[in-house]
Parts: sequence; C-alpha cells; structure tokens
Amino acid sequence: MKKRVLILGSTGSVGTSTLEVIRHLRSNFEIVGLSTYSNGELLGRQVKEFGCKAVCIVAKEAAFRFERNVGRRVRVFTGPEGLVGLIRHIPADDVVIAVTGSAALPALWEAIEERRGIILANKEALVMAGNLIMRRAKRNRVVIKPVDSEQSAIWQCLDGRQDSLKKIHLTASGGPFYGFDKKRLARITISDALRHPRWRMGEKISVDSATLMNKGLEVLETMSLFAVPVEMISVLIHPEAIVHSMVEFIDGVVLAQLSVTDMRIPIQYALTYPKRLACDRLLTMDFFSLGALHFSRPRIENFPCLRLALEVAEKGGSAPCVLSVANEVSVEAFLKGELDFMSIPKVIEKTLQRHRHIKEPNLKDIIFTHAWAKKEAEKIIATVNRTRKD
Amino acid sequence: MKKRVLILGSTGSVGTSTLEVIRHLRSNFEIVGLSTYSNGELLGRQVKEFGCKAVCIVAKEAAFRFERNVGRRVRVFTGPEGLVGLIRHIPADDVVIAVTGSAALPALWEAIEERRGIILANKEALVMAGNLIMRRAKRNRVVIKPVDSEQSAIWQCLDGRQDSLKKIHLTASGGPFYGFDKKRLARITISDALRHPRWRMGEKISVDSATLMNKGLEVLETMSLFAVPVEMISVLIHPEAIVHSMVEFIDGVVLAQLSVTDMRIPIQYALTYPKRLACDRLLTMDFFSLGALHFSRPRIENFPCLRLALEVAEKGGSAPCVLSVANEVSVEAFLKGELDFMSIPKVIEKTLQRHRHIKEPNLKDIIFTHAWAKKEAEKIIATVNRTRKD
Repeated sequence: MKKRVLILGSTGSVGTSTLEVIRHLRSNFEIVGLSTYSNGELLGRQVKEFGCKAVCIVAKEAAFRFERNVGRRVRVFTGPEGLVGLIRHIPADDVVIAVTGSAALPALWEAIEERRGIILANKEALVMAGNLIMRRAKRNRVVIKPVDSEQSAIWQCLDGRQDSLKKIHLTASGGPFYGFDKKRLARITISDALRHPRWRMGEKISVDSATLMNKGLEVLETMSLFAVPVEMISVLIHPEAIVHSMVEFIDGVVLAQLSVTDMRIPIQYALTYPKRLACDRLLTMDFFSLGALHFSRPRIENFPCLRLALEVAEKGGSAPCVLSVANEVSVEAFLKGELDFMSIPKVIEKTLQRHRHIKEPNLKDIIFTHAWAKKEAEKIIATVNRTRKD
Repeated sequence: MKKRVLILGSTGSVGTSTLEVIRHLRSNFEIVGLSTYSNGELLGRQVKEFGCKAVCIVAKEAAFRFERNVGRRVRVFTGPEGLVGLIRHIPADDVVIAVTGSAALPALWEAIEERRGIILANKEALVMAGNLIMRRAKRNRVVIKPVDSEQSAIWQCLDGRQDSLKKIHLTASGGPFYGFDKKRLARITISDALRHPRWRMGEKISVDSATLMNKGLEVLETMSLFAVPVEMISVLIHPEAIVHSMVEFIDGVVLAQLSVTDMRIPIQYALTYPKRLACDRLLTMDFFSLGALHFSRPRIENFPCLRLALEVAEKGGSAPCVLSVANEVSVEAFLKGELDFMSIPKVIEKTLQRHRHIKEPNLKDIIFTHAWAKKEAEKIIATVNRTRKD
C-alpha cells in the first residue's frame, strides 16, 4: 500500500525537496494533493509528473489561469480557505505543511481535526498556538513529525524517552552575520540576508536566520513539540551546522544527530517514519575531511530578536503569537525594502509592549491576537517610515 | 524488587566503579557476589559494606587468608574454576564481567548457560570466541549489555535498529603516544604506558590503549556484539574522547553518543537498562567550554597492533583468538619488564604466522588455540630475550 501524501506549499523550498524525495521513493508514496500560493506554472508541472487529482492555489487570479490551462481533470481549491478545503475533502495519510507563516495555522488545525498524520515544516503555527495544537493533537492521537532539521534531530535523539530527558541542546549556525558588529549589521541589504552560508531556504526563513529570530522561534517550537520549559533548552552556536541538535538525559548521556546540511534527510525521515529507507544518492558525512566541530555560547547582544524570543518564551500565553506575527510583518516589509534590517526587532519589541497579555489564550484569542498584532506592527512600520522620510 | 548483581573483578577499575554506582542507587540493587584475583583486603571491605554472602578469590593463598579473617559468614569460592562456581551457585539477575583477559571466557560462557543478564566489561572473551558466544546468547535469550564506553555508545545509538544500520564510526582517542615517531615509541617505559590522558583504567587496557591494540580489539568486539562485517566499521581518531562512537543509518543520519569521560556513566546505563536513572553527582557535558571536537583518519604506520587486528578481523576464524592471547602474554611480559614496547606487535605477528588457521572453530578449538597461542608467544618472548641478552 502506498502512503497517500498531501503537500501544502509544494512549490516552495521544503515542498520541492519533499517531491524530490518522493520522486526517488515512488513505489512507497502517492501524491494526492498539492498547493501553492501563486506559482501555478510549477504546480502544473508537479501535477503532471505526480499525477495528482487535487490542488489549491491560494491567489485567486493564479487559480483562474491554472484552471484555464490544466482543465477539468484536476480539482482546484482556491483562497486561504482552499487549504482547509483541500485537507477536508482529499483523504490522505500524511499532510506535509510547508507553507510559511501564520497562514499555516488553520490548515494545521484542520489536519489535526481530520486526524491526518502531520509532517510539519512550518514554525509559526506552533509558536502562535503551541499549547492548543499539541493538546488537540494528543486528544486526536495525531503524530506531528517535524521536518525542521533541529526539531527532527531532537525527535530522533529523544525517540519517545521523554521521562529521561534533562536538557535539549539546540544548535544554531549563527546565520550569515554572526560576529558582525552593529555598524556592519546596519548596512545589511536584502540580498545579503538571503544568502545563508549553510542552508538553501525560502526568503522568510533566510531573513529569520540572519536576525537569529529563527532560533528564537525554534526555542518556542521545541517547547511545544517536546513539552519542555524554556529552562530545559540551551542554545548553542555551532557554525558547521553538522550537529543538528542534541538531547541530554538525566544520567549524563548526550545523544546528537548529525548529517550533511540537506533538508531532504529530515524530510525523508518524516515521510518514512518509523522506518528508515536507503538514501544513497545523498551525500554522507565524511568525518575524515571534517576536521573539527565547534561549539560556543551565543553572544546575543547584537541579535535582539533572539533576546525577545527568549523573553517571550518565559512569558508564554499570547506573547509568542504577537512576536511571531510582528516578526512576519516586519520581515515582509524588509523584503519589500520598506524597513531596514536593524528595525525588525524594534517593530517587534514595540508591538509586544503595546499588547495586552492573555495568559491562557483559546483559539479565538489567538485569532484575535493575530489580527491585532498584524495591524499594530503595520502601523508601527508606517510610523518608522514616516519618521525616516521626514 | 531489587536487582541482584554479581560482580566478577570487583576490586579492579570497572569493578570499583560499578560498586560506586550501586552505592548511590542502593535502593535499586543488591550485591549477591563479588570476586577478586588476589586483593582479599579490599574484597573484605566490599563484602562488609554491601553485605554480600558469596565471593570468589582466584589466588588460593589469598583465599585462605580471607577465610581466616572473615570467617564462615561468607561462602568462598577459589581458583579460576571458582568464578564459574560463583555464577552457577549464586542466583543473580545480572552478572558484571569485569575481569581482564581470557580468564573471563569460562565465566561468561557459564553466565550465558545460566541465563543471567550479562554486563560485559571484558573484551578478550568476545574477541576469542565472539561467534560462539553471540550464537549461544541468542539461543538462550541472554542480553549482553556492554560497558566499554565505545560499545555502550554504539548500543545506545543503534537501539535495536539493526536493519537500518549502514556504518559504525568507532572513535579512538589515539592513546598517550599518538603522533609519536618510531624513535620516541622505542623509548617508552612501563610508567609512560600506564598514564592515559583521558581515562583512568587497569594496567592491561592502559598498555593496549598505548599500542592501539585496544582499538583493534574493539573492532573485533563490535563485529561480534552488533553482527557487522569489518567493512562496516570505520576507526576515527577523536582526541577529546567526548564522542564515544557513532552509528550511521542508511538514510544518511548519524547518531552520536557523548559524555564526559567517566566509566560510571556507561556502567550505570548497563545496570539500569532499559531505564535511565538520574546521576546528578556526575559531571555533565559543558559544551560552552568545550571549544571543538576533532576527527581524523588514523595513521596506523606506527601502530602495527591496530594493523594486525584489522588483518585478523578480515580473516576471522581462530585468528582473533591468537591475536588476543599473544597480545595478553606480550603485555604481561612488558609489564614485568621482560619485553620492550615495540616488541609487543612483533611477538603477536610471529605467533599469528606460526598458527594453523581454523576457519570455524568450536569451543574446544578455541580452548586449544588459547593454550597453543599462550605457549607459543611465551616461547617467542624467551627467544627475543635470549637474543637481546646475547
């Protein structure tokens, strides 16, 4: 029996890598649905290659164009609600959630309600509503399989031995600007921020890596996925990005997961879990030419995004949602050239200051907080820009 | 219910560490038997502290002295056959085999026949008769829990996932003389060889670490314990001795086990397996002050013992037994000042050359080979010494 896989965000970085893994394991998987924000052209080719019968194209115009070209052989969902529709109406064993940002939250929720297996590449949904999501997933006996290299590493090292867990060592390459002083950081351009030295990734996550917000979001994600308080997570700078994270047990033993930096490795593990399948076409670790692996304490003075995320991790409640949404809005503004690199954390901090904290938010609170934080961050960015222009 | 533990070799390095672990976990374990070669004094104190009722003292004179002093409250076995008697007559859940050298073989065999859980710190028995031992253990459903830091690391990383195994990366600190040239190696004294930079260990294993024979024996041990051919084992120089070994899976993922260099960690895991118990009094890994972990290809030109062991690993059959016994005899001669450091591999090589290979030895063949190799190595050492004196 082939495993039926539905991929949300199939034209993005994780989405295309997922399809590449499946291309080499065709006898094990069947693609039952794909989605894109607006890249109908690539989606069309993917539909053809993998013979899938249903898609979602979020941007309506792109959806109309797609329908005209591909015709009636494929069922097309559209709009943000189309992602939810695709999950609800297309039976699947595993749903890969590889869309960026808070847009993933309703889809993830729906996949949990429909009791699909979940392969999660999105951080923001868990950061926004981690407690709610994990509680619902547990109730519905839904397994959430992380794809992020760090979360996958923790998942593999921990392997269900939650009772013996003492500490999680979350590694961070430090991003492209680690070690830069404030002067150099202030001059960072969009194209600088999109060049990561270790991983090829989507635009948003590349900027998040550059600000170290990505590591902050991962701390919040780890807290939800593995039910640990922030004190049990230690962020460790490891520039080689070979050790993807480590788990320390109560008896002093540390297990580490290592591999070459290739997203196809954690993606494949999530797809084939609990089995492992051979993957010879990928590079394997060459310890002889590796030389050395370095580890150090993060110097966060110049990376206020990480500091903010750690503060928010202590606070909990609705604060992580505000952080994530304000960051999302700020990064979008940065990518449009409407905000400079060093102002990203300023917008987030200001948004957090203006937020009325909710200690134990329910789903409605999260939806409200999301809308509020988006508007508020946009307002703050507009003010920053007006001040700049004056 | 307390787990009943019998320790063979309780006055040695691993034995005393085992008792130290149990001292801190007294509510979980009960010591039912202890043994020593000749250190009756320390054994007496251990008997008193842990209140055990049976011991074996291999050296007969030491046994008589012990009986006179301790009296009739403790049952005393004696002679090499006393180890077997202790196992046969004293019921135990786990037998810790921490005696050095080939003397462990009959005791290990008996423990398997009696279906005890086995905690194995001895390498030589497995090297001599690995196939026979593992086959019998499997038939009797006996679990062999390794204590050697490398084997414990592999065991923990593999965790039963034999089907997905691609390669074992066996790490080696390189011993105290790694990087020495032949001139410096020729001048090595007994006290040089007994000072290991990373681990405090017994005398024989310290010399084996200095010649790198220890790593060679570990390759042979790994082959038996995890049923892998020598091609699946890669020896990796790692001077910090923090990564105790690694397992590579077929999907490109590597799991590594790390800890501070303290034998009590793998000993405790073997004792508490499959659970882990808290161990706060031990040092934990400090990645912030660690700096870097180095890895490199072993340069074995100056360490012929490792080369010989790898050749023997290819050959299999009775060859590993000859290697191990000839090494044991040579190290003993070195420790008595009767053989110089550089002659250890020469004696082993000559013994191997004179051996008539047996492809699939049975237990009788192994016992015969053991006796033959011991005599032959002694003969060769005597010749070397005669030549030296001339």
